[in-house]
Amino acid sequence: MTALWLVNGRPGAVDPADRGLAYGDGLFETMAAEDGRIRFLDHHLDRLCSSCERLGIPPPDREMLEAEIEAHCPPAGRAVLKLVWTRGPGERGYRPPARPNPTRILSIWSWPAYPDSHYTRGVRVKTCALRLGENPALAGMKHLNRLEQVLARMELDERDAEEGLLLDTGGRVVGCTSSNVFAVRGGGLVTPALDRCGVRGVMRRAVLECAAAHGLAAEEVDLSPEALREADEMFLTNAVFGIWPVRRLDERELAPGPVTRRLMELLGYGPRG
Amino acid sequence: MTALWLVNGRPGAVDPADRGLAYGDGLFETMAAEDGRIRFLDHHLDRLCSSCERLGIPPPDREMLEAEIEAHCPPAGRAVLKLVWTRGPGERGYRPPARPNPTRILSIWSWPAYPDSHYTRGVRVKTCALRLGENPALAGMKHLNRLEQVLARMELDERDAEEGLLLDTGGRVVGCTSSNVFAVRGGGLVTPALDRCGVRGVMRRAVLECAAAHGLAAEEVDLSPEALREADEMFLTNAVFGIWPVRRLDERELAPGPVTRRLMELLGYGPRG
Repeated sequence: MTALWLVNGRPGAVDPADRGLAYGDGLFETMAAEDGRIRFLDHHLDRLCSSCERLGIPPPDREMLEAEIEAHCPPAGRAVLKLVWTRGPGERGYRPPARPNPTRILSIWSWPAYPDSHYTRGVRVKTCALRLGENPALAGMKHLNRLEQVLARMELDERDAEEGLLLDTGGRVVGCTSSNVFAVRGGGLVTPALDRCGVRGVMRRAVLECAAAHGLAAEEVDLSPEALREADEMFLTNAVFGIWPVRRLDERELAPGPVTRRLMELLGYGPRG
Repeated sequence: MTALWLVNGRPGAVDPADRGLAYGDGLFETMAAEDGRIRFLDHHLDRLCSSCERLGIPPPDREMLEAEIEAHCPPAGRAVLKLVWTRGPGERGYRPPARPNPTRILSIWSWPAYPDSHYTRGVRVKTCALRLGENPALAGMKHLNRLEQVLARMELDERDAEEGLLLDTGGRVVGCTSSNVFAVRGGGLVTPALDRCGVRGVMRRAVLECAAAHGLAAEEVDLSPEALREADEMFLTNAVFGIWPVRRLDERELAPGPVTRRLMELLGYGPRG
């Protein structure tokens, strides 16, 4: 449920000529708000701005955007803020307008009621049949072309699994439907490199930076599903829920381990954490 | 330029919660209208409905949609009608609503001023650097995830080429930025099979059906750029412009040949044709 939608700063609807709708020609950020501030706001805006550069979409005025986001961040408690940034309205045809006029859409959502056990016991992950197409030109960005994730999500029955594991066409691990994947092997972290597809998540960056700051080895690698199944620990990251240990990957049973627990503690995630 | 936008049958704007905007979770058809009727309307609606089935989006009521399209088709002259059909509004997250309520957006556009020479002399095609990701789950459909086409279109300078040739990750020919590709070899037609990526165009289907009806051999194949460069003739198809001969593919010069001309005549395309 959302209480508020702001289109270019005002309650309202979207121009049907918007290229975000016509072609998925835009980007989004989903952010966790707590007591009036956004966690990792700089990471979100870094990704948004660098993706704008890659797509040739004019980037937002960062100060203006920060001010708008902060102004609509509920002063107490938790909420989810979602920002969509598109190339704006256009004529028919793929060619972008010479001078795009981006559209920004900010929406505020209630905090999801995650069970405490997702943090304490962990979540269940099921490998999806759908494979992600590989395209380095789009890899890493949180763009609006998300039909693959929609189809993958449709494969999941919530009675069986909270998240779906996605492989690329070449059979390598990319991540989950709405999160990035980390494995712990021999005390160090590995996570897929995401240079062919997948989203470079804000929490993924936070975990990699936290690991570096605390002397924990972490590598971005080509990860096979076999190597993932042999991991000592496995966890998922997402800017809203933070870190969830994995307690089942298909038939393999796991338990939250010491490295996962330490990162959760360092970054402040847990039940109501 | 467009004169009219109809959102669910009325002039208006789009709900910012629409999944077409959030995820590109929808489809579109771009149709050629002439003197009050749509060319190949059945082919357009066939593709739309079969793609709805593949994506789990409720299909349109075909009679209602036909009536709405016909009611807004200008009674005289030419126009382009574009129909967008999305999964409709949704909550945050990739999981579709249990009972989606699709959004339909109909827009009417003026006919593009194509130079006669595109039909008589042909057009220039340049191979794009961008490669298309391969995903059989999405192949063939005209869905709203079109960032690859946007990026490819951005590579083209209109002074050099009218269309960009796209290869998939494996280096096979898929088609052009806004059209399908046919080659003529030894008097018969070949066109990419499109089971990994690309759009199964309405005019592509019309050409294949026309070839079959007139005893012209036609095959859907894996086509290499080398094989394409050695073709006797090459042409592009698109529901709006119909058929354009290719007069240049990168450095290779070609000319409109007898097979291309015959298909143009049979299907009624040419300068003002």
